[in-house]
Amino acid sequence: MIYVIGIGPGNEEYMTYECKEAIKDSEIIVGYKTYINLVKDLISDKQVIENGMKKEMERCKKAIEEAKKGKKVAVISSGDAGIYGMAGLILELVSKEEEKIEVKVVTGVTSSIQAASVLGAPLMHDFCHISLSDLLTPWDLIKKRVKLAAEGDFVICFYNPRSKGRPDNLKIAFEIMSEYKDLDTPVGIVKNAGRENEEKIITTIDDIDFEDVDMTTMVIVGNNTTFISNGKMITKRGYEI
Amino acid sequence: MIYVIGIGPGNEEYMTYECKEAIKDSEIIVGYKTYINLVKDLISDKQVIENGMKKEMERCKKAIEEAKKGKKVAVISSGDAGIYGMAGLILELVSKEEEKIEVKVVTGVTSSIQAASVLGAPLMHDFCHISLSDLLTPWDLIKKRVKLAAEGDFVICFYNPRSKGRPDNLKIAFEIMSEYKDLDTPVGIVKNAGRENEEKIITTIDDIDFEDVDMTTMVIVGNNTTFISNGKMITKRGYEI
Repeated sequence: MIYVIGIGPGNEEYMTYECKEAIKDSEIIVGYKTYINLVKDLISDKQVIENGMKKEMERCKKAIEEAKKGKKVAVISSGDAGIYGMAGLILELVSKEEEKIEVKVVTGVTSSIQAASVLGAPLMHDFCHISLSDLLTPWDLIKKRVKLAAEGDFVICFYNPRSKGRPDNLKIAFEIMSEYKDLDTPVGIVKNAGRENEEKIITTIDDIDFEDVDMTTMVIVGNNTTFISNGKMITKRGYEI
Repeated sequence: MIYVIGIGPGNEEYMTYECKEAIKDSEIIVGYKTYINLVKDLISDKQVIENGMKKEMERCKKAIEEAKKGKKVAVISSGDAGIYGMAGLILELVSKEEEKIEVKVVTGVTSSIQAASVLGAPLMHDFCHISLSDLLTPWDLIKKRVKLAAEGDFVICFYNPRSKGRPDNLKIAFEIMSEYKDLDTPVGIVKNAGRENEEKIITTIDDIDFEDVDMTTMVIVGNNTTFISNGKMITKRGYEI
């Protein structure tokens, strides 16, 4: 069987009890080496299959191979495995297999939720997740989603906001949003949410410095009720106060 | 100080370690009685302030009163406290106080993520959260968001999908989505996700029976890549397989 596990940001304090139990119950741990490193204290007695970035397909296929031999395998991702994580790929690959392989998705705290808790309460009303990585998604579709989400005054969480290979996607997304959202709409930036070296910046659509953002960063853009108080970013639920 | 805690679905296995530590560290536990009941084994030695539905404001004000007396108070919600939970209201109320009151938001597994893990991996690509409760949000804004989210081919998670007081909002949302999404788009319905009596139904936009949905239910509508295999609802991330 295969557990597909979201470990959250990585520190044990943000894992669920189910996550730790599933890791303990596994014989083989499969993952991207950075994530393996985050749980190394929990897996010293396990067989580990790790590899580098963009090798997800290879990792998942190995996990399935081992599961077919009767092993209990844990495929680990940071955050939640079902949100831009490995749960989908594992289930897609398993759906092609003739043999029945049991898959259990173990939930974790995804990056937007962790970052939101650091910022205050920016996700108190309707929100979207949009990944700005155009490796697997057409850039036109991403831009369309940014436009529609901004038009609907959703709070927007940007995953994979910026990398060396695509330094300008976030800037373009902000240009699109500016047509619909006020320029003084609060923006929260959290680097390494829930990890050592966590950093937060609260700014606005107009004042953001894109250089503050990299691949380890979550960017959350408010809606038209979002405000800043005592360094906290707060979106109103709608109560009369 | 005030911890605003998301306990996840309620069972200890889905809580984070941080959540349990924060509950242990608190002297007073404040919450809606149904949620208090979910953690009753953890709080037998604590003072408890509980009340009924729609009394959030009263609860939060009591929590702030106790914190001002120097008590450590935990305000608990199910799911994540920052997602349609109590974190925003507490921070809004605290922002009106002259005295500085420390507030720590403790993350939890929100209902969409728990339901997704039960269904398979429906949230593998860009998605929205929309609450269909028009108690605190104008119905026209909700409908506009449903339209734009469907137009952008987002996966959509409906919070508060249906209650006795508003039996038809979900039906209207489905009518709006039908203009943009294929009628055979998979829809996952999970009742009591992560709790006893958990139930799942996988259906389509065309075939949904709205009577299967109540306030304890999460409804997740797929995008144009979402498919069903072996009873799992899977949204493609975009890998070539």
